[in-house]
Amino acid sequence: MKLPRIYEGLDREGIYLEGLRRARATVNDMVDHNHRHFAIMTERYQIANASPLGLNFLMFRKAIELQGTPEQQKYWLPLIDGAKVNGAYAQTEVGHGTFVRGIETTATFNHDTDEFILHSPSLTSTKIWPGGLGLSCSHAIVVARLKIGKPPVDHGIHMFLVQVRSMEDFRPVDGVELGDQGMKMSYNGTCNGYAKFDNLRIPRNSLLSAHAQVTKDGSFIQGKIDKTRLLKKTYSIMLHHRGLIPRCVSFALAQSVTITARYSVAILEFKSQHYRILALISQAYAILFASKRFDIQYEALQQDESGDGASARLPFIHALASGLKAWSSTVACAGVEEARQMCGGHGYVALSGLPEILSAVSASLTFEGENYVLWQQLGKYLLGQLQAFTTGIPIAPEMGGFLTGIEQYLRDEKFDAEFKDARRDELLDASKLLSIFLHRSRRLLVTAYRQFERNVQQLHPAQAWNRVMMPIISAGRAFIEYLVLQYYKDYIDAISTAEPSLLPVLTRLYSLFALTTVINPNSQFTSASFTEDGTLSLSQIHDMGEQIDELLTDLLPDVISLTDAWDFTDASLCSALGCRDGNVYERLMSWTRQIPINSAVKESNGVLSSMWDGPYGMEGILKRDIEKGARL
Amino acid sequence: MKLPRIYEGLDREGIYLEGLRRARATVNDMVDHNHRHFAIMTERYQIANASPLGLNFLMFRKAIELQGTPEQQKYWLPLIDGAKVNGAYAQTEVGHGTFVRGIETTATFNHDTDEFILHSPSLTSTKIWPGGLGLSCSHAIVVARLKIGKPPVDHGIHMFLVQVRSMEDFRPVDGVELGDQGMKMSYNGTCNGYAKFDNLRIPRNSLLSAHAQVTKDGSFIQGKIDKTRLLKKTYSIMLHHRGLIPRCVSFALAQSVTITARYSVAILEFKSQHYRILALISQAYAILFASKRFDIQYEALQQDESGDGASARLPFIHALASGLKAWSSTVACAGVEEARQMCGGHGYVALSGLPEILSAVSASLTFEGENYVLWQQLGKYLLGQLQAFTTGIPIAPEMGGFLTGIEQYLRDEKFDAEFKDARRDELLDASKLLSIFLHRSRRLLVTAYRQFERNVQQLHPAQAWNRVMMPIISAGRAFIEYLVLQYYKDYIDAISTAEPSLLPVLTRLYSLFALTTVINPNSQFTSASFTEDGTLSLSQIHDMGEQIDELLTDLLPDVISLTDAWDFTDASLCSALGCRDGNVYERLMSWTRQIPINSAVKESNGVLSSMWDGPYGMEGILKRDIEKGARL
Repeated sequence: MKLPRIYEGLDREGIYLEGLRRARATVNDMVDHNHRHFAIMTERYQIANASPLGLNFLMFRKAIELQGTPEQQKYWLPLIDGAKVNGAYAQTEVGHGTFVRGIETTATFNHDTDEFILHSPSLTSTKIWPGGLGLSCSHAIVVARLKIGKPPVDHGIHMFLVQVRSMEDFRPVDGVELGDQGMKMSYNGTCNGYAKFDNLRIPRNSLLSAHAQVTKDGSFIQGKIDKTRLLKKTYSIMLHHRGLIPRCVSFALAQSVTITARYSVAILEFKSQHYRILALISQAYAILFASKRFDIQYEALQQDESGDGASARLPFIHALASGLKAWSSTVACAGVEEARQMCGGHGYVALSGLPEILSAVSASLTFEGENYVLWQQLGKYLLGQLQAFTTGIPIAPEMGGFLTGIEQYLRDEKFDAEFKDARRDELLDASKLLSIFLHRSRRLLVTAYRQFERNVQQLHPAQAWNRVMMPIISAGRAFIEYLVLQYYKDYIDAISTAEPSLLPVLTRLYSLFALTTVINPNSQFTSASFTEDGTLSLSQIHDMGEQIDELLTDLLPDVISLTDAWDFTDASLCSALGCRDGNVYERLMSWTRQIPINSAVKESNGVLSSMWDGPYGMEGILKRDIEKGARL
Repeated sequence: MKLPRIYEGLDREGIYLEGLRRARATVNDMVDHNHRHFAIMTERYQIANASPLGLNFLMFRKAIELQGTPEQQKYWLPLIDGAKVNGAYAQTEVGHGTFVRGIETTATFNHDTDEFILHSPSLTSTKIWPGGLGLSCSHAIVVARLKIGKPPVDHGIHMFLVQVRSMEDFRPVDGVELGDQGMKMSYNGTCNGYAKFDNLRIPRNSLLSAHAQVTKDGSFIQGKIDKTRLLKKTYSIMLHHRGLIPRCVSFALAQSVTITARYSVAILEFKSQHYRILALISQAYAILFASKRFDIQYEALQQDESGDGASARLPFIHALASGLKAWSSTVACAGVEEARQMCGGHGYVALSGLPEILSAVSASLTFEGENYVLWQQLGKYLLGQLQAFTTGIPIAPEMGGFLTGIEQYLRDEKFDAEFKDARRDELLDASKLLSIFLHRSRRLLVTAYRQFERNVQQLHPAQAWNRVMMPIISAGRAFIEYLVLQYYKDYIDAISTAEPSLLPVLTRLYSLFALTTVINPNSQFTSASFTEDGTLSLSQIHDMGEQIDELLTDLLPDVISLTDAWDFTDASLCSALGCRDGNVYERLMSWTRQIPINSAVKESNGVLSSMWDGPYGMEGILKRDIEKGARL
């Protein structure tokens, strides 16, 4: 039971070097055995951003694929794949976040030397946040404003491939200031960093030139690029990253629930405990199934793209990726915190592994698109589709079934929802449950749509949007929860022929997921949107509560199998509470005793002396003749 | 703009010593100037547990006050107040948390030497969690099972005052193993620790003997103690600690909101941003006012206690403390996270100060009583009171108004709630809003009561309780939210004569707090309990949304005054984003550049060489002849 190095209480340098060690191991494995597994996720199932070498294979490579000429690709891609360079992607600036048009960094063409001068003209133009940039990158894609001529003409935002460190001693090249952002809530094994450029000279071919070139004489040549197609391709790459998040957060939730289930086996008889853990298990599976379905749809998009390039699927998949990312990160983050709390005090200690999982998953709420922004992207799509539908403009095929049924909501006629008067037993039926979510989603979308239409008659569209934002977000969330349930049901239907033995437990889990979304397990304060219109009656809500009770009883024997099924290794969980052998207290105490500060104190070296007679030590304050006193 | 030491990326030892430095400064200040301010909170408004010297003045002292003889008190209390000793309170054991009856540690009387033998008979009996115990305490109260005679007779759980470290060199005394639990989510400036006893000999007068003594000949003499009175006194001390939490978490929320408001001044025009920040501000004030009211009631309890001792107020105050603690920690924790997210990526970096506030406030969900347990304590009280009321047994005076009005809910007659058909304007009226919360609270309590009564006819009471737990928790939460609103209203009424100029803004904030509790600002998924019975109509809910809009517009100019009013110093916020001068980016970059790993790399010392040619360094993987390549 050796204490994992990461729990030794290392300083910033030690934590970074431990991250580098793990990154080197995974990259060597990829290079030696010619696979790409760790280009997406680390060995602990975190998104590859968590590794100081991870973004080389994601953002850095994708940028060159998208914007590099065939020659540039031919030169750089093998260097990337062989880990012969380590690249970052530097776009965000400290003063204006991800707002691309705000970018201040300039790349000014110098005709005399055939170079660009890369420069950060202000403090706010400092590049910030790129993973790996602080301490680990040899190169970076730098997004900057291209300027040519005297007086300089602004040709907009372009990407430049820039060497930022020497390959002789790894010091930053002259003209580049690089630094680490210090400790963060998580991802401390990598070095998110900043870069400030002071008139750095870079060769003309640093410009990624697939779509725009600067010639030796300073002419700017816009390629014959189909701008729509480029934009779609750019979107599709961003979607790839965004689409990884549901997968990663489902694993984060699954890891936490596995740890908590193994720790709390003994106290699962308490209703609140097994209510919580089974609801979380059902959420982790629901996110995983949804992310698998997303991958299939993304794959189909890729097929289209490699064909005629401009896919009609893109808007729907973009909306889906935004909503799934926002929803799954919200659910997973709350779920990991819930699992942590279920371990009481032990869940607060680093050794449990839970604080690190929680902090990492928290980042997913804001990166790759802040969730409020993403909800609005989904909302915009849904409102646009509904408007098209009402005005007879063709809608996306993916929205057909959903929108066709929405007519009766638009007509505002009283009608009987499919589940109205459903009896107790029927409230477990997969289709009935789905119809409850569908009803809610349609109703909330029409409500938001009407409010927006009413407001936009009096206000500027942006103001109207602002005013109706909350109902729009609600409509988006309800839509995603409906889709997730639909995808889960499809998955069960597929399983029922492929693996019928899994059907009973997955069906119960499906019902539990649906019912505990209607009646939230944390409190009964979260279900207004299901009940406020009165279509679900109060007695049906009570029946649902009793169905949940029975499902919990039925599923309780499966808790350990359902978590073992994720098949996490002890090394990937890195938890004193959650190892497969269940030796919780023995491992917890064994690891605790190995923490270096404890052995250091035991050996009476510098630590003890700092504690006792160092400048703030205890000696100066405590009374030394108390030994006798203890015996009064 | 000097980087605060805590952001240097220190290791476990460095972080602890920084905590000790701060603790020494605050304790010296108390001793030198004869005050008790930092006995409750640290200089950064964290609960005193966060300091390695903090529990000396709280738990350690209180235990001696409660269980020590006059002689023991006379000897120890001045040593505590003068910080001549530093004590811990060791009760929890690793295998059974705070479950007192599970305690395994034994103190066996040895007649021959006139001593007790303190012993940890198993791994699970290791004492764990006491603040300061790991590295900083000279003494500890150890809760152990008293055994006397041959064969030993078990005399139950008692407190022993034990010296654990030498006052000569501060090493653990022979027979005690002490250690630090390593890194936690927060509170790393202190050293929560463990202690394992190996037949440690302690003198007979180590037993705190106010209520039970062991004589030289080994007789056990139970004092003429009124057990009920002792229990009440014990409760009252626990209530004191529990009651500190709402105060501390209101400051944590206020600090976060202050940082976020100062950082996001520029983007407050976005509706979602000012919706969120003003809702959080209203919550921080609501918690603060409620905690002030709790203090007044606790003070009255103390008056009673110093009189005849057994106060009739205790059960209500106990229920109130449990509910307020559970509610305020839940709200503050969600609010701090929300504020952190509003700062985007910057809120993820330690320098923002927000990760530390978040991690610290997260602890309050589980310590001093896990919230699920506390909600049930409140629920038990409420159900008991309602049962008393229905069966004609006298109820607590504090519950009079609430229960008298509950009759019509019990009669199950249709009746018109006070706010039924309230028009738009009336939905801002303080009394009307309060009546909405009162209605919900009464309705949910009666629902939970009926469900319990129905279930208890068929099931064992514990099973019935288990089955109805969720409705009971909902009823508790609704009751607390009603009380908090009531206390807020009382506060406004008092202000209206004392400081009439504050009335408009505090009244708006009151309405905003109430309305955004009905219509939750994060989503519209949280208000089922207000709407599910249909008494509030859908059109009233819409009206509330519009009232919120107007309140936000009215309150927007006050955002900075409302946060400045808490009067936090820059030093206590310790945030690059939230200083009073508003120089966000300048400070952020200045602090970032001062992080030691950055200057270390610049000076090309050991760090750079670890990064480059250390065992996992980059040299072994990157291609060194690439300098030319960069120019392709």
